[in-house]
Amino acid sequence: METDQLVLSTKWQGDFVFSAVGQGGHTLTMDAHHGVGHEQGLLPMQALLGALAGCVGMDVIMILRTRLQDIRSIEIVTESEKRRNPPKEFLSIVVTFFVEGDIDADKVLHAIEVSGEKYCPVAHSLKADVRYRLMLNHKEVAVD
Amino acid sequence: METDQLVLSTKWQGDFVFSAVGQGGHTLTMDAHHGVGHEQGLLPMQALLGALAGCVGMDVIMILRTRLQDIRSIEIVTESEKRRNPPKEFLSIVVTFFVEGDIDADKVLHAIEVSGEKYCPVAHSLKADVRYRLMLNHKEVAVD
Repeated sequence: METDQLVLSTKWQGDFVFSAVGQGGHTLTMDAHHGVGHEQGLLPMQALLGALAGCVGMDVIMILRTRLQDIRSIEIVTESEKRRNPPKEFLSIVVTFFVEGDIDADKVLHAIEVSGEKYCPVAHSLKADVRYRLMLNHKEVAVD
Repeated sequence: METDQLVLSTKWQGDFVFSAVGQGGHTLTMDAHHGVGHEQGLLPMQALLGALAGCVGMDVIMILRTRLQDIRSIEIVTESEKRRNPPKEFLSIVVTFFVEGDIDADKVLHAIEVSGEKYCPVAHSLKADVRYRLMLNHKEVAVD
């Protein structure tokens, strides 16, 4: 199988704070949860949910790129269930797209499905069951 | 099985840029790779590697918390192999801790192993094979 490499450096900033540096020198700063850390950054598990949302979001933008002028806003809410006892991993994640705009429901739904089934590398890197929902202009569009 | 929930919101910022907001209002901004996006944020797959590094890093800090005055620096380099063709998911990840300080190699190695085997929720959420290495004061410490 042909593969590519991706390398990242993350540095300890004191206490429970770690900062990862990615493309363009942009950073992801993380901290432990309130009571252990001091909310100086995202929780690592929040960063993982954000990575998943960004990944499927970019696929949808790519698939719909000729129709972007018709989309006013996209919010992606990732709701996860995780095990309460260590290792507290994700068991299931529901990714809900809240889209507003003058665009066919079928087209948006198709873009989300293609990302989930074929493309998004973050979704395919996770053990958890990942499901997708679409709310278009405040109405739920049924997923097959 | 007892579970907890974790919810996150990620918003489209135009082009391929998405921003997720986590605890303390801190954001993770992501963009597509150069040539598609404009390097306005991390790649989602970089964010995932950062989440993994932050997760194991915080476990190590927690386990070694009574010895932190003896640690001068920690850098965590995550090197991944991912499939070249879609869905381009992670196949394997090597997490190398570069630690400097006056601390026993066995103690740091034990902390990393305990995180990898029992605790880190990000590592346990991934399908990829995750391995750990320790370089303490520029010398490799063998992992069992």
